[in-house]
Amino acid sequence: MVKNKIRNKKPKNNNIFQVYGYNNCFPLLKNNNYKVIRIDILEQKKDFFARRIDFQKYSNCLGLLNKNDFSNKYDGIRSQGIVVQFKGPISREIGNYNVANANSCLLILDNIEDPQNVGQIIRTAECAGINGIVFPSHNSFKISNTIINISQGAFLNMPIYEVTNISTTILDLKKNDHWVIGIENSIEAKLWSKVDYTGNIAIVVGSEGKGIRKKVIEHCDFLGKIPMQGDVNSLNVSAAVSAVLFERLRQIKFKG
Amino acid sequence: MVKNKIRNKKPKNNNIFQVYGYNNCFPLLKNNNYKVIRIDILEQKKDFFARRIDFQKYSNCLGLLNKNDFSNKYDGIRSQGIVVQFKGPISREIGNYNVANANSCLLILDNIEDPQNVGQIIRTAECAGINGIVFPSHNSFKISNTIINISQGAFLNMPIYEVTNISTTILDLKKNDHWVIGIENSIEAKLWSKVDYTGNIAIVVGSEGKGIRKKVIEHCDFLGKIPMQGDVNSLNVSAAVSAVLFERLRQIKFKG
Repeated sequence: MVKNKIRNKKPKNNNIFQVYGYNNCFPLLKNNNYKVIRIDILEQKKDFFARRIDFQKYSNCLGLLNKNDFSNKYDGIRSQGIVVQFKGPISREIGNYNVANANSCLLILDNIEDPQNVGQIIRTAECAGINGIVFPSHNSFKISNTIINISQGAFLNMPIYEVTNISTTILDLKKNDHWVIGIENSIEAKLWSKVDYTGNIAIVVGSEGKGIRKKVIEHCDFLGKIPMQGDVNSLNVSAAVSAVLFERLRQIKFKG
Repeated sequence: MVKNKIRNKKPKNNNIFQVYGYNNCFPLLKNNNYKVIRIDILEQKKDFFARRIDFQKYSNCLGLLNKNDFSNKYDGIRSQGIVVQFKGPISREIGNYNVANANSCLLILDNIEDPQNVGQIIRTAECAGINGIVFPSHNSFKISNTIINISQGAFLNMPIYEVTNISTTILDLKKNDHWVIGIENSIEAKLWSKVDYTGNIAIVVGSEGKGIRKKVIEHCDFLGKIPMQGDVNSLNVSAAVSAVLFERLRQIKFKG
């Protein structure tokens, strides 16, 4: 699936990050967009890793640690014997809003702070084949090790855009032929399954507690809702994202 | 929505559990199925809690703690100023498989160990209106504080059944007019959106890494799959559950 229809501009978050585990580290080390600073490997798994990583390429930053040293350094991390430090950027500014493909979909995260949810959302977004995730610089999560590790390698493929102002971004998207759909349980909202997700769209979600900010909702073309069927009335935002993005996928690719 | 169509039998997990935060504690204290052992409340929020909790009813187990004592006792917990200890059971044995309602749905968790995923799945299952969750006593997660806290109160409403043998349970369900659908990315699997979820069904899911055990798959009537659209090829199991359960809800309640 072709990504990055919206041209990347200036990189953000040029910080140093740390990932661990096979799903994050192996694809990172095959990706040439990041500067790898350090690879620490559990010595007893050296042969296993040698078959999967170009040791020569990384010879100047590769460390083999015995079990004791590795455990001391990375206590409590489910590392599978590998930890990689690298330099970002993970997120970028949005460049050109002009999209050529028929069914572009961006997911806009408003008011979301929990890094677990963000990591899961990046992973789900990648599996559901959307074109990018947008989040605001202020009143929001910051890109962190937790987020990128939970994304299980999806941060490498899913474009993540950091914008100064969500409302401005929505207005720009609308000017460039996007429909903007807010997911919010309000009276005027359509059922999530009755929303038409074809064409170029942006889907906006908020946190479970606070929802989408009022002024952001006002910029949405229409709203969709997932009606709760039980006594607990709030679906986790990453579960809601999964329900909505796979309903979109069904509509654009697997209907009829 | 009517729950508990499958009659509850012997309770399991008569252990002591600890929940925190409004979403878990308030509904628990209004529920008469559990023995409350201790309620600890942050003294400075006493008036707030007095309006929401029957202090008289719980006078013999209610503790008001000042900020220091509360912080020391519950360091690192996002408690919102309330922690409740209570005695289970959270899970039960399955009793009678005979279901009267037209669209009963059970979710069977095979090979799943991560408590975060289990807690999220219980919450999603409640929001999507299914009738119960089934898990095996062995090679599986155990009901824990992490699971029930992440479920955000959903553990109080969603029947959770612990069984000795998943295969036996599936055979019993099939004898009692249930279709059994495994969610597994294999060649013979239908698209998740082409699966017919109407009628009495059981949906089986496995963990991302291991999937459903082979002998359990063999007992399924048919398989459904969610085709991955990106480079990361494994959807988190709780995200997959959300996509499938809301597609079921769409089919049985909001189609056409």
